[in-house]
Amino acid sequence: MSEPTRNVLLLVQYDGTDFAGWQHQPGLRTVQGVLGEAVRAMVHHDVTLYGSSRTDAGVHARAMPVNFETHRTIPAEGFLRGLNGHLPPDAAVVEARDVPAGFRARDAAVAKTYRYLFQTGPCALPLHRRTAWWVRRRALDLGAMRDAAQRLVGEHDFAAFRSSSCVSKTTMRRMYRLDLTELGADGLLALDITGNAFLHNMVRVIAGTLAEVGWGQRAPESLDALLSAGARAAAGVTAPAHGLTLVQVHFEGYPRLGKRPRPDDAPAPEPA
Amino acid sequence: MSEPTRNVLLLVQYDGTDFAGWQHQPGLRTVQGVLGEAVRAMVHHDVTLYGSSRTDAGVHARAMPVNFETHRTIPAEGFLRGLNGHLPPDAAVVEARDVPAGFRARDAAVAKTYRYLFQTGPCALPLHRRTAWWVRRRALDLGAMRDAAQRLVGEHDFAAFRSSSCVSKTTMRRMYRLDLTELGADGLLALDITGNAFLHNMVRVIAGTLAEVGWGQRAPESLDALLSAGARAAAGVTAPAHGLTLVQVHFEGYPRLGKRPRPDDAPAPEPA
Repeated sequence: MSEPTRNVLLLVQYDGTDFAGWQHQPGLRTVQGVLGEAVRAMVHHDVTLYGSSRTDAGVHARAMPVNFETHRTIPAEGFLRGLNGHLPPDAAVVEARDVPAGFRARDAAVAKTYRYLFQTGPCALPLHRRTAWWVRRRALDLGAMRDAAQRLVGEHDFAAFRSSSCVSKTTMRRMYRLDLTELGADGLLALDITGNAFLHNMVRVIAGTLAEVGWGQRAPESLDALLSAGARAAAGVTAPAHGLTLVQVHFEGYPRLGKRPRPDDAPAPEPA
Repeated sequence: MSEPTRNVLLLVQYDGTDFAGWQHQPGLRTVQGVLGEAVRAMVHHDVTLYGSSRTDAGVHARAMPVNFETHRTIPAEGFLRGLNGHLPPDAAVVEARDVPAGFRARDAAVAKTYRYLFQTGPCALPLHRRTAWWVRRRALDLGAMRDAAQRLVGEHDFAAFRSSSCVSKTTMRRMYRLDLTELGADGLLALDITGNAFLHNMVRVIAGTLAEVGWGQRAPESLDALLSAGARAAAGVTAPAHGLTLVQVHFEGYPRLGKRPRPDDAPAPEPA
């Protein structure tokens, strides 16, 4: 190879419904798998795709950062167009740019924003069934859920809020915001969470626990005890994967990724 | 039959992606077909389903009114639960109620509201691909589109804005509003149209014509000439079906249908 190596960053959107998650698994349809095939078809050499997160089967992404190295001189814009020509309709590159050598989408992330969508009402709505969790006919007490959610903001030990298979050695994480917002007239309720990092299934366990608060099955104050005791079995159900979307990954020192910056998407500064 | 005949009104939501439209067609998967099977499985007699509109293949509905007659004494709420147990995930009954004998969802409609969704940006977004038309990379001039849209408000001859196969004898229709609204950060643009009635493909031809205005291919003022000349060939392309959703059907003298009334969804009073 005579050309110098480049580091290309992609933002990838996908509808996770028909993917077995982000990470490559032999014999399964994964985002890393289909994206890797598309990249290799353009660069004609083997590549490693570094994703910023490993989303589970059924989880969606609005903009998953992924980087790879190549010596090809295809412009970033050419990667965007070319890869979208190769990708299936449920995955697309929404942005492509060159980044400095050594940048890794996973290591460079300083915060992530997820959205979990609840849907109330008499049935699972066909037009929202792929991205929202129908919590059956039970109404949700929004005030109680907001009270509970605020108790998770800040730096805490989230050991109670992870899957039993989570292998992370540290369980301290800092949450910058947990906001609950009613969306439109279809009974949709969005939980938007920004934090410095997340344990496996953490957003889904938080969503399931907040739903139980909304149903009146546990008190908002009980969240304090969950944080201090750290017992997974004491927290709520793991909400289903299809209600979860990775909205944005934040990088320090890099311009915000995504087409239209909104100030409220940025992580709040850490308290001194 | 000893019981008196009842008239049951359903509001049905469906994701039109995998349906060959509303109307029953032998050998094809239609909304009327799957809903008819579900109703017959509950009432154990043949029924005729009267839909308020005949949406084309690929078109969605947030709340399509459908009525049928039965002598069964199942409560309306029982129909809602029971039918949703029979229906596939891409169709659901969101409301059920008894209505007076003689009420026909099609005849009683005094206005309908449709939404057409455009999506701009570098690629068709996977999370919106089922319900929005990606207008490729071309930017849309929103001001010009709004200017053009306002020229269609009021009572006009819409002969230029229908499919060549439309058999309607009259082509005068009254539009109460045509609003264009940018939605969120994903390049989505919604066209919301309320009118007293619509010709075949009328919203899609309007959407295609407004897109051509947005691209600078035709002037907003040209809409006046389209209305007065009435020549279909002079109007724009028929926008694809999957961007169109039947949002609401309005009935005079009946409470608004749908869960959360919003004043702006009601048709404006007719000018004296």
